[in-house]
Amino acid sequence: MYELTMNLKTSSKMPLYEQIYTYIKKDIQNGRISYGEKLPSTRALSKHLAVSRSTVELAYEQLLSEGFVESEPYRGFFVAQIEGLYRFGAVRTEEMKETAPDRKYRYDFTPNGVDLNSFPYNIWRKLSKDILMDDRTELFRLGDSQGEYGFRNAVCNYLYQARGVNCKPGQIIIGAGSDYLFMLLAMILGTHHKIAFEDPTYKQAYRLADSLCYETVPVSVDKNGMMVTELSQTDADIAYVTPSHQYPTGSVMPMKRRMELLLWAQEGGDRYIVEDDYDSEFRYKGKPIPALQGYDREEKVIYLGTFSKSIAPAIRLSYMVLPKPLLSIYRKKHRFVNSTVSKVDQLIVQRFLEEGYYERHLNKMRALYKSRHDALIEALRPLFHICTVFGEHAGVHLLLTFENGCSEEELLLRAKQRGIKVYGMSDYRIRKSPEDKPTVLLGYANLSEEQIKDAVGILTECWK
Amino acid sequence: MYELTMNLKTSSKMPLYEQIYTYIKKDIQNGRISYGEKLPSTRALSKHLAVSRSTVELAYEQLLSEGFVESEPYRGFFVAQIEGLYRFGAVRTEEMKETAPDRKYRYDFTPNGVDLNSFPYNIWRKLSKDILMDDRTELFRLGDSQGEYGFRNAVCNYLYQARGVNCKPGQIIIGAGSDYLFMLLAMILGTHHKIAFEDPTYKQAYRLADSLCYETVPVSVDKNGMMVTELSQTDADIAYVTPSHQYPTGSVMPMKRRMELLLWAQEGGDRYIVEDDYDSEFRYKGKPIPALQGYDREEKVIYLGTFSKSIAPAIRLSYMVLPKPLLSIYRKKHRFVNSTVSKVDQLIVQRFLEEGYYERHLNKMRALYKSRHDALIEALRPLFHICTVFGEHAGVHLLLTFENGCSEEELLLRAKQRGIKVYGMSDYRIRKSPEDKPTVLLGYANLSEEQIKDAVGILTECWK
Repeated sequence: MYELTMNLKTSSKMPLYEQIYTYIKKDIQNGRISYGEKLPSTRALSKHLAVSRSTVELAYEQLLSEGFVESEPYRGFFVAQIEGLYRFGAVRTEEMKETAPDRKYRYDFTPNGVDLNSFPYNIWRKLSKDILMDDRTELFRLGDSQGEYGFRNAVCNYLYQARGVNCKPGQIIIGAGSDYLFMLLAMILGTHHKIAFEDPTYKQAYRLADSLCYETVPVSVDKNGMMVTELSQTDADIAYVTPSHQYPTGSVMPMKRRMELLLWAQEGGDRYIVEDDYDSEFRYKGKPIPALQGYDREEKVIYLGTFSKSIAPAIRLSYMVLPKPLLSIYRKKHRFVNSTVSKVDQLIVQRFLEEGYYERHLNKMRALYKSRHDALIEALRPLFHICTVFGEHAGVHLLLTFENGCSEEELLLRAKQRGIKVYGMSDYRIRKSPEDKPTVLLGYANLSEEQIKDAVGILTECWK
Repeated sequence: MYELTMNLKTSSKMPLYEQIYTYIKKDIQNGRISYGEKLPSTRALSKHLAVSRSTVELAYEQLLSEGFVESEPYRGFFVAQIEGLYRFGAVRTEEMKETAPDRKYRYDFTPNGVDLNSFPYNIWRKLSKDILMDDRTELFRLGDSQGEYGFRNAVCNYLYQARGVNCKPGQIIIGAGSDYLFMLLAMILGTHHKIAFEDPTYKQAYRLADSLCYETVPVSVDKNGMMVTELSQTDADIAYVTPSHQYPTGSVMPMKRRMELLLWAQEGGDRYIVEDDYDSEFRYKGKPIPALQGYDREEKVIYLGTFSKSIAPAIRLSYMVLPKPLLSIYRKKHRFVNSTVSKVDQLIVQRFLEEGYYERHLNKMRALYKSRHDALIEALRPLFHICTVFGEHAGVHLLLTFENGCSEEELLLRAKQRGIKVYGMSDYRIRKSPEDKPTVLLGYANLSEEQIKDAVGILTECWK
């Protein structure tokens, strides 16, 4: 019979029953007790180890539940056949090969930054804890492929109040990021379309269109956004636009141009507008202009938005509002595609919206970004004789166009030599021309006012 | 000057500073104090309200941070221009329109069930809490598009030890569910391929292939899985297979057939095998057979797996292991596509794997499912003269083929009339033939042993 000679440590952090469980489990795994052998009775072992009988029972229950032993009524516990059981060795820790963020730079004016020091950690933790407490099994069951109804309802309300988007929760699809939603949209639309992109543009979407085998065509942007006269001369039937704050030029599409764009879409039965409202939350002067979608009476606008910019990039939560004809295609043919967002995340953000935290967070971020925006413009003043600022008053970046004969490359290089990363407009252009004016993007979401002042001081020196 | 006449409630759950903040915020929003008006000094207000000065300072800080007031050095706090500020009304709660699970049935033998009563809630909650405590900003920054390196490393170790999958963490792509990973794979492979599916098959993947505009061709399945002789006669260049446990027939592909399949792939330069190892975790007799991927020496197998079956369906976490030629295409052309899984979720599952919880969870689920599997087979005994059981010993469902002249439709209908949902094989077939034997699928993951006994008792009555 199996003899146990374990030393129980009452001072250990590991409970006694777990020590007994671990000891016997190891003996089974090492073959010291073999298949079919009987374990001591709970009464005998509790006496032998001088612990309570319920402690031994707990240990046996654990072994039973994990398949190491089997119980036979009136006979006791016997070692089970364990060849099918899992046993994973320690993880060999490979060296981290991830590239660390570029340490060569003291300051990085990335236009894709989000200030994460202002992330509402405590609220997030509280909501996350509450939600994991509240629900039980329901939370881990597969959810609605479109996204949870309650969450879509909250997004619908937010979009109506904040962006003038006119839709029902049934038109909203929740997805893990805008890239995924674009991939899903491609399945719904099919690839027999030609997509017009603003030039310069948001290259992520442009590259994705290319990866998805779409034909694309660039359309110029003026101070009012995509030029609809130029669009009309192409054979594109989908226009991908950022009317709230053109990326990257920062221009806001005025009402007249919006109406022209809607009219263009109405002229062709299969034409659609993709409105990417990526950072419409931040506007520092005047009221935000409602989304194009809100003016669309002919079911022509596909509206895309995200919480990645307004909450945090690692929150993989975006939404797409489909016009009814596309919604009916989605419902008929693609609704079987499972959701990409966990229910827990959807519920956290739902409560974040419903309990007023998002409103407060947005106002706080807006105030913070506005101070940085103002500080940046103030600090740039000494450069105003050689460059022009545009794209300000909204979003989290602005642009400088230089007319001092210095090339864009040269501007970037001089900044780099002083440890400052700035971004060149040419990276965002689809077509390049020698007539393009040297233009630099400065994002300010990630830098404090002091850092902005210091960094712009250096830029002023090396650019003047 | 602005006169405050608020009643502070010291007995309220809301802190005093928050009561002051809320009161003044409302007055600003209602226009009772207007743009430019000065707030009382913190000293005056603290005296007036008989609270500490720091309480008033906290309230003002909050108003300042959300943009309702502005501070001017040496002058005090002034109401800001608030037209751009967000203010969301209460959410109108629309009626829930989600369809509740089918209540007509007393028992549902779904083959896609997962026992969620055994979900390790406490451990999940603990890990989730720990992770949200540990990291701060890093956790909410955009992560690696392939998935976090540490998590991929843990998955790589698990796959090597549990499934014999031979890969580096660099070959693994993490995605929010297998559907998404299939969509990504379609971008990598392009759509100029023809995909052979097992017939009967996992319809989700088959429908997805169709949605992604792939040409497909069905290939018959015998007791050893996909028939490679039939596959060779098609012009397919991709074979989508489930060798560990063919879905839905439950057959396990023996070594000889695996080698034939690998040989088929090696014969064409552009041929690939997609190995969907969807429920390989559960096997009740003998050792699990290592994955096909582990025998592949020619970089022909794309391996897909998921935590949705083994942990919980709402955990949107799957992985794909790419052979090197496809990895290099992904790296060059598609790595810009952002990850669909939040870092928090990746870290939770990483620690779940690394700290031994997954091993324990799998052994526990295996023991639980094995008892249900055994109970189901035992309960089915009285039917053995009219049907044959197959697909047992693995996964979470088995099949019954009837030879009593009763049609599949009739079997399903009779069960339905007694409140029991069972599934017909014809839903899984691509091609239907009058020669197909009536076959019923019984999934047992979601039912207790008692429920299984009761339900099968009723089935025996109505089928015999």
